[in-house]
Amino acid sequence: MKISLDVFGGDNAPIEILKGAIAAKAEYDIELALCGSTVEMLRVAKDAGLSLEGLELIEAGSVIDMHDEAKAVLRQKADSSMAVALKMVADGKADAVVSAGSTGAFLMGATMIIKRIKGIKRPALGAIMPGTAGPYILVDCGANAEVRPEMLNQFGLMGSVYMKNVLKVNSPKVALANNGAEETKGTDLQRDAYLLLKNNKDVEFCGNVEGRDIPSGEYQVIVADGFSGNLILKTVEGTASFTFGMLKDMFTKNLFSKLGAVLLGSGLRELRQKMDYTEYGGAPLIGLKQPAVKAHGSSNANAIKNAIRQAMQWASSGVTEEIQKAVAGNEDDE
Amino acid sequence: MKISLDVFGGDNAPIEILKGAIAAKAEYDIELALCGSTVEMLRVAKDAGLSLEGLELIEAGSVIDMHDEAKAVLRQKADSSMAVALKMVADGKADAVVSAGSTGAFLMGATMIIKRIKGIKRPALGAIMPGTAGPYILVDCGANAEVRPEMLNQFGLMGSVYMKNVLKVNSPKVALANNGAEETKGTDLQRDAYLLLKNNKDVEFCGNVEGRDIPSGEYQVIVADGFSGNLILKTVEGTASFTFGMLKDMFTKNLFSKLGAVLLGSGLRELRQKMDYTEYGGAPLIGLKQPAVKAHGSSNANAIKNAIRQAMQWASSGVTEEIQKAVAGNEDDE
Repeated sequence: MKISLDVFGGDNAPIEILKGAIAAKAEYDIELALCGSTVEMLRVAKDAGLSLEGLELIEAGSVIDMHDEAKAVLRQKADSSMAVALKMVADGKADAVVSAGSTGAFLMGATMIIKRIKGIKRPALGAIMPGTAGPYILVDCGANAEVRPEMLNQFGLMGSVYMKNVLKVNSPKVALANNGAEETKGTDLQRDAYLLLKNNKDVEFCGNVEGRDIPSGEYQVIVADGFSGNLILKTVEGTASFTFGMLKDMFTKNLFSKLGAVLLGSGLRELRQKMDYTEYGGAPLIGLKQPAVKAHGSSNANAIKNAIRQAMQWASSGVTEEIQKAVAGNEDDE
Repeated sequence: MKISLDVFGGDNAPIEILKGAIAAKAEYDIELALCGSTVEMLRVAKDAGLSLEGLELIEAGSVIDMHDEAKAVLRQKADSSMAVALKMVADGKADAVVSAGSTGAFLMGATMIIKRIKGIKRPALGAIMPGTAGPYILVDCGANAEVRPEMLNQFGLMGSVYMKNVLKVNSPKVALANNGAEETKGTDLQRDAYLLLKNNKDVEFCGNVEGRDIPSGEYQVIVADGFSGNLILKTVEGTASFTFGMLKDMFTKNLFSKLGAVLLGSGLRELRQKMDYTEYGGAPLIGLKQPAVKAHGSSNANAIKNAIRQAMQWASSGVTEEIQKAVAGNEDDE
């Protein structure tokens, strides 16, 4: 099993990506192909006293930066660390790819270079979120701002297959993000998607879910268009960070509260960890012929290590084959 | 100043509504018209040992219940406590109305009975939310699932006038909920609304806001279509409740954590209060000729009291006149 890694993507590249790769190599039975400027990787590793032994270095002449348009990954920067990492997968030289670089470039690059599963209309970005009852996937969380009902139906299928095979959730419950529980809620998009999902024999569709009931994790797959999904994802992040900020103020208020915080010690750390979505790795871009994981732009070494583990589990899970089979089956039905 | 009250709307009606009315009457310089079955109101008050002295009772023969369609408020149940309360405002017998009853019926009833301000295309439901930097209004949060760009522009104006006059925020900052900060983000709806808001001289438009930055309260007016707004509102609620649930588990884990919670005592209560959106009252339905406040369905006496105070402040604020003027001004421009 080999994972290709975009070493120069993300806010903390390349040092945290290298550290994450070294940690993953030490912990998992895995091969890693580090894509980027080899001279630079060796220099950074040397300066930081890191050994790159046992890691494959793949030369890439440029880097996608925040000023680049997404399509740069296909042409002007076809030699970038991201593009090179993607091509390794497309060429069968790696089994999955991980990048913490530009989301737009990664979506476009992965879609055009790795290519979609036959029958899948749009790949979707899934966010794995911590819920009270366990993790859930929010799909799509930003790849497709505008979608058609049949795409939402496929998002439900893909999310379900992913949760079953990668996160080992038995018969994941699928729900459609909506502004009310009744079948008639939402716009035409949701109403039509509701009917398709209800008749989709490959998913356990449980109806609509309101924002209030998303974070509970009662449903393991939340289906949304990329516009709403992105707002949901980031509102969860923003609200959690708002609440933690208030908690912090509370803990540092006076001597009693500081003592209280000390007594809560391990519980606080546990809470923080339970709410840390980077523990689940990155955002899987589902619907492509090979696994592609988008790690958070601000990923540190640990988040990168988790994303590599996730890519590894995904690559050996049979997700792609199961999606392919389900989509082919549905085409036969028509 | 007189507020008409739907005494039989909401999960805790009529008792909590009566208690809220009594508390408001005691605390504010206000007249209240209690709409509903007078026999029932008197009976409930007597059983609970409450005095309705100084409160006006207005007979209403029926109640909108959860099985009724929204339009029932206009015809079959035109004699309901909600419809009667709305009509008092339309007939000039009250200055504002408060109901904790069915949102759908209230939206339809208020729009058809109180009627829109001339030039306003759609009234919008605003949710007043607690933010780190102070409260903000999310508008629309559920009245209009499908909107046109010019409606989003008006939502921005109405939210801005409301925050300025009722919550006394100097030149409120207005932002458009979107899946990215750049001007080109979102769907055609957001891109077109962005341009209208940018050129709207009556609002201080600050561009797009992502879900992550909504709970900070940095922007005092968040503009959204009712579908996205509803998802944002309820996701904030769900995430806050998820976090508090985890906190509770943490506090009751062992003896140390219980002691820690005791030491945090007042801080915890403060935090809870700071995050309690019912402190700001209910959801204002903005864009009508008179103020209409939708209190939360699960409102207790305190939430009702707050909603009454809010209706009172709104009615004496000049919001309606300012919206009217701005809309008329913009019509002249065309």
